[in-house]
Amino acid sequence: MSAPAIEDPVFTLSCGPVEVYPAVLRALSKPVLYHYDPAFLAFYEKVNEKAKAALRLSNAPVILQGEPVLGLEAAAASLIARDDVVLNLASGVYGKLFAFWAARYAREVIELEVPFNEAIDPAAVEAAFKARPDIRVVSLVHHDTPSATINPLAEIGRIVAAHGAYMLVDAVSSFGGMDVHPEPTHSDLFVTGPNKCLGGSPGLTLLGVSERAWAKMEANPDAPRASILSILDWKEAWRSDRGYPFTPSVSEIYGLDAALDLYLAEGPERVWARHDLTARAFRAGVVAMGLDLWAASEAVASPTATAVRIPDGIDDGELRRAIRGRYGVMISAGMRETAGKLVRLGHMGPTARPLHAVIGLTALGGAFRAIGQKVDIGAGTEAAMAVIDAAM
Amino acid sequence: MSAPAIEDPVFTLSCGPVEVYPAVLRALSKPVLYHYDPAFLAFYEKVNEKAKAALRLSNAPVILQGEPVLGLEAAAASLIARDDVVLNLASGVYGKLFAFWAARYAREVIELEVPFNEAIDPAAVEAAFKARPDIRVVSLVHHDTPSATINPLAEIGRIVAAHGAYMLVDAVSSFGGMDVHPEPTHSDLFVTGPNKCLGGSPGLTLLGVSERAWAKMEANPDAPRASILSILDWKEAWRSDRGYPFTPSVSEIYGLDAALDLYLAEGPERVWARHDLTARAFRAGVVAMGLDLWAASEAVASPTATAVRIPDGIDDGELRRAIRGRYGVMISAGMRETAGKLVRLGHMGPTARPLHAVIGLTALGGAFRAIGQKVDIGAGTEAAMAVIDAAM
Amino acid sequence: MSAPAIEDPVFTLSCGPVEVYPAVLRALSKPVLYHYDPAFLAFYEKVNEKAKAALRLSNAPVILQGEPVLGLEAAAASLIARDDVVLNLASGVYGKLFAFWAARYAREVIELEVPFNEAIDPAAVEAAFKARPDIRVVSLVHHDTPSATINPLAEIGRIVAAHGAYMLVDAVSSFGGMDVHPEPTHSDLFVTGPNKCLGGSPGLTLLGVSERAWAKMEANPDAPRASILSILDWKEAWRSDRGYPFTPSVSEIYGLDAALDLYLAEGPERVWARHDLTARAFRAGVVAMGLDLWAASEAVASPTATAVRIPDGIDDGELRRAIRGRYGVMISAGMRETAGKLVRLGHMGPTARPLHAVIGLTALGGAFRAIGQKVDIGAGTEAAMAVIDAAM
Amino acid sequence: MSAPAIEDPVFTLSCGPVEVYPAVLRALSKPVLYHYDPAFLAFYEKVNEKAKAALRLSNAPVILQGEPVLGLEAAAASLIARDDVVLNLASGVYGKLFAFWAARYAREVIELEVPFNEAIDPAAVEAAFKARPDIRVVSLVHHDTPSATINPLAEIGRIVAAHGAYMLVDAVSSFGGMDVHPEPTHSDLFVTGPNKCLGGSPGLTLLGVSERAWAKMEANPDAPRASILSILDWKEAWRSDRGYPFTPSVSEIYGLDAALDLYLAEGPERVWARHDLTARAFRAGVVAMGLDLWAASEAVASPTATAVRIPDGIDDGELRRAIRGRYGVMISAGMRETAGKLVRLGHMGPTARPLHAVIGLTALGGAFRAIGQKVDIGAGTEAAMAVIDAAM
Repeated sequence: MSAPAIEDPVFTLSCGPVEVYPAVLRALSKPVLYHYDPAFLAFYEKVNEKAKAALRLSNAPVILQGEPVLGLEAAAASLIARDDVVLNLASGVYGKLFAFWAARYAREVIELEVPFNEAIDPAAVEAAFKARPDIRVVSLVHHDTPSATINPLAEIGRIVAAHGAYMLVDAVSSFGGMDVHPEPTHSDLFVTGPNKCLGGSPGLTLLGVSERAWAKMEANPDAPRASILSILDWKEAWRSDRGYPFTPSVSEIYGLDAALDLYLAEGPERVWARHDLTARAFRAGVVAMGLDLWAASEAVASPTATAVRIPDGIDDGELRRAIRGRYGVMISAGMRETAGKLVRLGHMGPTARPLHAVIGLTALGGAFRAIGQKVDIGAGTEAAMAVIDAAM
Repeated sequence: MSAPAIEDPVFTLSCGPVEVYPAVLRALSKPVLYHYDPAFLAFYEKVNEKAKAALRLSNAPVILQGEPVLGLEAAAASLIARDDVVLNLASGVYGKLFAFWAARYAREVIELEVPFNEAIDPAAVEAAFKARPDIRVVSLVHHDTPSATINPLAEIGRIVAAHGAYMLVDAVSSFGGMDVHPEPTHSDLFVTGPNKCLGGSPGLTLLGVSERAWAKMEANPDAPRASILSILDWKEAWRSDRGYPFTPSVSEIYGLDAALDLYLAEGPERVWARHDLTARAFRAGVVAMGLDLWAASEAVASPTATAVRIPDGIDDGELRRAIRGRYGVMISAGMRETAGKLVRLGHMGPTARPLHAVIGLTALGGAFRAIGQKVDIGAGTEAAMAVIDAAM
Repeated sequence: MSAPAIEDPVFTLSCGPVEVYPAVLRALSKPVLYHYDPAFLAFYEKVNEKAKAALRLSNAPVILQGEPVLGLEAAAASLIARDDVVLNLASGVYGKLFAFWAARYAREVIELEVPFNEAIDPAAVEAAFKARPDIRVVSLVHHDTPSATINPLAEIGRIVAAHGAYMLVDAVSSFGGMDVHPEPTHSDLFVTGPNKCLGGSPGLTLLGVSERAWAKMEANPDAPRASILSILDWKEAWRSDRGYPFTPSVSEIYGLDAALDLYLAEGPERVWARHDLTARAFRAGVVAMGLDLWAASEAVASPTATAVRIPDGIDDGELRRAIRGRYGVMISAGMRETAGKLVRLGHMGPTARPLHAVIGLTALGGAFRAIGQKVDIGAGTEAAMAVIDAAM
Repeated sequence: MSAPAIEDPVFTLSCGPVEVYPAVLRALSKPVLYHYDPAFLAFYEKVNEKAKAALRLSNAPVILQGEPVLGLEAAAASLIARDDVVLNLASGVYGKLFAFWAARYAREVIELEVPFNEAIDPAAVEAAFKARPDIRVVSLVHHDTPSATINPLAEIGRIVAAHGAYMLVDAVSSFGGMDVHPEPTHSDLFVTGPNKCLGGSPGLTLLGVSERAWAKMEANPDAPRASILSILDWKEAWRSDRGYPFTPSVSEIYGLDAALDLYLAEGPERVWARHDLTARAFRAGVVAMGLDLWAASEAVASPTATAVRIPDGIDDGELRRAIRGRYGVMISAGMRETAGKLVRLGHMGPTARPLHAVIGLTALGGAFRAIGQKVDIGAGTEAAMAVIDAAM
């Protein structure tokens, strides 16, 4: 007799791919059309209009046919010219990793790093420009997911713009879950995607590109063309009277369309509010249970994910196996520098609902107990409920 | 009052993306799992096993997270080293285009081109090696879709192998619709995908990589790493105890799994037979209607698509608008060198059924008549039925 | 090795259940809500409004939770009181069968029968009233599907109304495919459903009930109450502030909603036109192939299905097995009195598209040939195309 | 600006229709086949085999094309003959209601009623037979959902069998969630359905019919025939070489098939265990929160639903609106005699997972607090977790 297959999880509280809204799942199952079918051409143009509305852009967005890691690599390859000096701001693992791509294309990469449970100080960015007025591109991860911390993008963007430099932003896991958009933050290349707070499926990138970023990329002789890495090739692909550089991922486009419909219909402000509430309730519960948050302060804690510090002597793998095995709850681990030091629970899209904080807390608490760590689940639940009920 | 939306087509007889099997559509709507969920890790490994079975490989295949254009660019970037001499075989638009990518990475690209309605002659390949024994990589499009013609891959592969060179093959629109697999054809890098004859959705690449191709790529210092273009990064990603370079397109993987299940359950030989029968019936009907095939001979005509020559004085755009507008049938145009000279109908996946030849013929015939070209639809239908019924 | 499973058909050209529109299939997969969830209550009310619009009613329709056979039995049980004299008009198998139910509830059933390839003559109805002024209920099958013939409902309804009697109509397989609605036809109980020309799934009944029919049923002490057969119990169930007699078929309601959306968005007149065109093309093709229509004249032939007479010496089972086995086309047989004498092809919902006439003709022609009957498929196709092209 | 639509619930913890497994939703979207298509005929036979396996029957089950209310009415109409004396056992609202149907068909109905928070005592059944040896049919609701209490079916069934009477059982909301099957309980007509513990959609009835029940129904001249209420008509409908009395609800059959697959693959014993655990955790939490269970004792409390007594002075409608409005959790109210006195939460199918007890408890606790009732949510959560963790 064969071993039973691994059961599907009951709740996916990871940091992405997250659970997908049912309407997105249904959209993914729409009949696949030929991408040059007039019905698809018109549809693709409409999806771009919805993405433009969601991103609150004054020009057209770009959809790239790969998950946001493609978008980030393409952004580095396209925007950073061989003579550019890049200031890479690193407050976490993803920020740190971006330096690798920046270095592939830049003349020089200057790193500004803070401990991975803190946020970048805008004053330090200002100081960096003073020291190196030749900085041309500043790269920042808005929500560094492996730390679940948020950087002050708007303030940094203002400084970057004041110095005439270009702001390249990874907003993959914050956009859609909080009030962050390219133009108010002076982001020249704003990279996000459907598979985090929009509750869509992984496989596409959404880009906001400022007009000056388009000009810079067009002037960059090394910017990819005739390549999966090309942003320029897709500039006009949204127009139903133009062609595509290659076949778009038709089914994923259907899913994106549904995710954008849900987001715009519910109302962005309402969506952000439930992300924030879920995260605040969860953090209150974590503390009340007797555990520590990874983030150095509430001020830097993300509204779309929470990192919980692993107490000394606890094996995070054992903890995660317990939570998955006992309660069917899937969460995320740390990565690289944060590996073993924290676990992360996402509050994104369909899981950004207050009671999901309670699910996360009781599962986490039960798993800690199962591996020998005392926690006060009752207090944790009460603290979370107090936050939730105060908001009603 | 707003204009009515463009109606969906009734039949998609394009050359891809093609109509997708209903079971694939349902699979695309499965709940999205976190890619490190143990259930997904186990699932991903199984999908790779099915792909291995379908490709009839002795080693593991690679799934890349983008449609086969990514696979082709990645193949060029990974396999072709800066000192390599590449022999690019061009019997059509796609073959011709590949030289562009080959030239990006190779020391020199030698082109062997034939008219775009003919196939490469293996003797010419043999002659090329005689002239240039330093050829290291030979690139070939097995089914050059914009011409709907097939090249003699097995014969060419034997020659390439005999000379110790590497065979890089685009089998995107032939694999799954006829008897073509990497190993019997000595293909070192065999690029295909789910969105043609497997009747899946566009968004993934399937690669067959020979052990010597792995060795060559690993020895190539310029082969992409930490990039969407990296094949090497994904070498072991199929193993449930390894990580992924980045998030796979979870929903597309579900779709691929379903497409492979259908293919293996129906039986590859039976699937190929209905592709072949549909194409033969369609070609017989085209000729009987009084039209000309693009392919110079039956021997080079593809079993998975057919190109029909546009008579002088006929505008192919008008023809395609007539067929879509009158009958709701979506077909493909020519491209670049073949643009305006032909139209193409796919016989792929769910449309590789004999009566779809009749649908294509009557729609094509009706559209020709509508724009003033005489055709004998009755004779075309009878000829197609004769081919079909002879096979029963 | 086990026998291969029976393959799914490629085309379902039956007379119902018919192929279902893809959007209906997706709607069927919406998450099931508790029927008293406020979101479902509001949704159910909206579905009823759409059904009211589609049926062009001035009062609310009724949705019964079972396919139209339930609706017909419920109609007989509710409307026909024990003292009633019923005139049952039988131009086909379904009309004939209804007498059985009528007899279960009526004091007396008078039958007016015509050959099953003809239609009821309104003059005969007028004559019946002259002979028996005590007729209280007249029952008619508008489209007697086993004959694929249409009765002159509007004319008969006018006569019935003039005599103050009640008109009970089975419009199951005509509504949605042609211009037939309860009120213009003086239908007091109009029974239809989503699984024919609306292209929905089987499992629900739609009823149009005139105010005088409500009054008659309410006055009927034997009209079912607290029963699956009760129409009265569901009278106000559409109101979101009322309860349901029992749990509605939530998923089917989702499917009905989608089917109504499609019907209203495409425009009923356009939907009817493509039903009519498909049927006319098919009939022209049948005759040109050298076969006979079952209907005595074009005037009585249905625009939503066609019955083809089986020539002497041909076994209809053999024919249907050939068409299903060779071409994957599923069609319908005759029933009872028409069994063995005809086969039927539906032109309903998603199959009411002109090229489906060609599919039906070539498949039918090929199958006839396969069992030894000569037919001219080329001529049939040309005749169908001529009808289609004349309409463009 | 229009009011926002009512948002869908986040969790449906009602007593049915319950949340449906995702695989069932996907199955509901399979292409609709003609019911006489050979592929559907074979499929329908297989579904019946799976239902037979799940019900652990030695003969074929029956699928009726309507939700179990149809099954119950049909059972009464078919099994109860006009000369029969029926003993109706009423421990709740549904049991009480069944007497209405029984009386429609029986010569006499004897009622044995207990308070609606208790269970029937088998000794009382034995006593009833002593008093009235002419009892021919005994009717029992196994799980009287409006009370969330379970009756001792096996013991009662043994008594009924010993007296040669017929046992008619409503097991709609217990089958699939606990160890209850027709044959070990001597149930002659066992009525259940897919839309409770099997996690399927509402619209079908599953019947287990003993051979002696078949004989009794066949001997009953009043048993419905040619009616939606007929069980006899469907006796052989499972056979692929027989016809259907009318069109089955094709999509619902697909859903049932998927629900049965899930049930059999997970293993019935494991499914029952998680129903039981969820219910026990929830009950422990309710008590620890300071609330009262409706059930008079743990022994009669259902493993598939829990009724919580409404404290004096609390309006249950206000409570349910608070739980739905604040937390997006949909629960069930009481009915008739239990209306206003209790609320009910289901633990059925996909919601029979331990953490769903926590969701229910915190939502219920928060809603009670919101309307002014003190409860100890922390203690409730801890008590539930203690039960859950003890089972791991």
